[in-house]
Amino acid sequence: MSRSDALLTDLYQLNMLAAYLDHGLTDTAVFELFVRKLPPHRGFLMAAGLEQAVDYLESLAFTEDDIRRLRRLGGFPERLLGFLGELRFTGDLDALPEGTVFFPDEPVLRVAAPLPQAQLVETRLINLVHFQTVVASKAARLVLAAQGKPLIDFGLRRAHGAEAGLLAARASYVAGFAGTATLAAGIDFGIPVKGTMAHSFIQAHDDETAAFENFARSRPRDLVLLIDTYDTERAAERVVKLAPKLARDGIAISGVRIDSGDLGEQARRVRAILDRGGLRHVTIVASGGLDEDQILALRDAPIDAFGVGTALTTASDAPALDCAYKLQEYAGRPRRKRSEGKATWPGRKQVWRSVGAEREFAGDIVALAEERHGGEPQLQPVMRNGRRVQPAPALDAVGAYARDQLAHLPAALRRLDPFRYPVAIAAGLRDLALALDRAEASGAEGS
Amino acid sequence: MSRSDALLTDLYQLNMLAAYLDHGLTDTAVFELFVRKLPPHRGFLMAAGLEQAVDYLESLAFTEDDIRRLRRLGGFPERLLGFLGELRFTGDLDALPEGTVFFPDEPVLRVAAPLPQAQLVETRLINLVHFQTVVASKAARLVLAAQGKPLIDFGLRRAHGAEAGLLAARASYVAGFAGTATLAAGIDFGIPVKGTMAHSFIQAHDDETAAFENFARSRPRDLVLLIDTYDTERAAERVVKLAPKLARDGIAISGVRIDSGDLGEQARRVRAILDRGGLRHVTIVASGGLDEDQILALRDAPIDAFGVGTALTTASDAPALDCAYKLQEYAGRPRRKRSEGKATWPGRKQVWRSVGAEREFAGDIVALAEERHGGEPQLQPVMRNGRRVQPAPALDAVGAYARDQLAHLPAALRRLDPFRYPVAIAAGLRDLALALDRAEASGAEGS
Repeated sequence: MSRSDALLTDLYQLNMLAAYLDHGLTDTAVFELFVRKLPPHRGFLMAAGLEQAVDYLESLAFTEDDIRRLRRLGGFPERLLGFLGELRFTGDLDALPEGTVFFPDEPVLRVAAPLPQAQLVETRLINLVHFQTVVASKAARLVLAAQGKPLIDFGLRRAHGAEAGLLAARASYVAGFAGTATLAAGIDFGIPVKGTMAHSFIQAHDDETAAFENFARSRPRDLVLLIDTYDTERAAERVVKLAPKLARDGIAISGVRIDSGDLGEQARRVRAILDRGGLRHVTIVASGGLDEDQILALRDAPIDAFGVGTALTTASDAPALDCAYKLQEYAGRPRRKRSEGKATWPGRKQVWRSVGAEREFAGDIVALAEERHGGEPQLQPVMRNGRRVQPAPALDAVGAYARDQLAHLPAALRRLDPFRYPVAIAAGLRDLALALDRAEASGAEGS
Repeated sequence: MSRSDALLTDLYQLNMLAAYLDHGLTDTAVFELFVRKLPPHRGFLMAAGLEQAVDYLESLAFTEDDIRRLRRLGGFPERLLGFLGELRFTGDLDALPEGTVFFPDEPVLRVAAPLPQAQLVETRLINLVHFQTVVASKAARLVLAAQGKPLIDFGLRRAHGAEAGLLAARASYVAGFAGTATLAAGIDFGIPVKGTMAHSFIQAHDDETAAFENFARSRPRDLVLLIDTYDTERAAERVVKLAPKLARDGIAISGVRIDSGDLGEQARRVRAILDRGGLRHVTIVASGGLDEDQILALRDAPIDAFGVGTALTTASDAPALDCAYKLQEYAGRPRRKRSEGKATWPGRKQVWRSVGAEREFAGDIVALAEERHGGEPQLQPVMRNGRRVQPAPALDAVGAYARDQLAHLPAALRRLDPFRYPVAIAAGLRDLALALDRAEASGAEGS
């Protein structure tokens, strides 16, 4: 039962490893993970998932059980199985710190390791970094749209499995969410866990007021009552009537939640009812199929916080990025893939970011790693010889860095307006690509 | 480290459980999981994920570690923690068999259990059944579009985490995929695992032909060479030149893969080169951002098999369904939620499907469970008193059933044409909903 994460890979990686070993292709390979182009509704991306990637690399090892399972699956040479049994990741990793805003063609991470290692880890590295980056990039838009109002992740149920739910809670917290409804994410990552009540709780009672009161007496802390099961305004009136009775027993209603209908209009009516009933301090939480466009449209509604589910955890308008993990250098020589529409920039690269007078991001240059440009280099050393160069930062520190990144986006990107952030390809990199193309044209890849 | 799956739930479930226990709300509750409406590009859905749901329910238990973690998280009454420590799922489950084609308003599964149990499991049940249903429904479209040509899942890397990648491999195999590239899915589920080679393998060599030959000699079985790294037609010529040399050593090239460019046009040119070179038996595999529309458009191209990644494992055009798990009956009395735009049909339900002369699906009726209608009842007993009523079917048997379902879809749905399959709500169910609405109008939910 103890299949390890080492087996979370594509069969073709093992096929290639067998051939690399047979033919002595074990020199240092440099792979970079980058995004080819932005999906339609994204002006920028936010890197996330690095910690899980490092954990994976640091703990990478095939167990004896794994090897037995591979042998049973059949067709793998014993030489390969012996190699896998000994395999550890001994390479270097450079990466954008989690929470960094980035753009297409910019490496998110760079692996330099013996070719079989760097090849094997492709699948799971992409799997971990792609998904959290997808969610952090979506969450950053939601955070900008909410303009300071707190957002809570409600999306475990429709996330794509358990790991997706947990990592979405993490990635959205990095990007500025206030918390998650997912209990296990609180336990695994220390993210604040928030929770109200479901319609079924109301429906299990014959009487809506009795349901509110029963819940309040059992769970008086952070008390948020769900008021849209039958008739939202009537339920708000019931909350007003119930409040003094609860108050006499020291129980304060903290908020109400509306999960359906025209949220702006409902919130206005409910706000009026609550205010008339002396419940000005009671907040209104809105949820139910929200995305950043709807949150922007609700900016003037008397809503104090938003619960976001499916649109966040599945990043439903852009559930995948056109990203790749490509060989850029082998045995010290730069490489370039030239497949139609999928050509890559060769060599080890670095990204330099210039900032303006207010530290707002002004433009990036993608350059060869050995070049020096103005601004700040974005990729940082993360692992050397298979070990972290420093301890993982605390999640709250990552979140603070991400907030700082969002604060320094160009104003158009902060407003979620269409805006093409300037990313230049350095002359040295263009020259190298051209030189490699010329070499191929003259037949260097043989016939 | 051994946090159990029992904690894969929303905080609010525990809040509600505390209140249910305090107020004696522990009678039998009936919840149903259903889809409210089809996403834009779907004419039908295919149920999947039931086996994982049953595994979850059968093994549901909070460990002592879980309870300690909850105590550390804080705020949970000891009465609740004591209850959770003893909790097992003791209820009944009825469900559509995996692979069943279904439509909105039709229950996919029905849980009947003491209210606290039925409530707690909501989050993970939806999480498991929703995702596999999303992927099986997408995969079914791809299978129909491919018109008998084999499809392989290439999508672990962009799936939303590890569990998503594994369950997507499973759900797509149920719907008719021939296999997956995901090694761990082969090991966990016995799904056939397929693999070719990556561009990096070619790029690590100075010479494309040498790369082909090295790979062929190391991995001669099911040998598929990737030919689009530099120039697809030149690579095809190289394959033709290499083939006789390999044949002398008993190595047969099984196929070539094209992963970029105009796949139809490339396939025609490559087919011509291979045929001229005497390699008529060598198949062409196409991959690279494929979805069902592109596969339909490639129907006349000389492509023998398709690799599908992101569009499958993220179901990128419809990564989530508008589904819900709603309380339909409590303590023997039907319940109805009436939230704006989210009203539910009350009571325990069954779906009856009529078929035509060729066993093609002619129309469904959603009725109360105790009613009898024409056709076949679709929900089947799966668990009684917390245990399976029969062993889990083999995955290949599930796949055969799913193929049979697709074969009996109305022709328009098989062609992926827009077509609204007739689903009627039985008179008895409408009457019950009306009666509950009248009761609410007369104030039965109190003031």
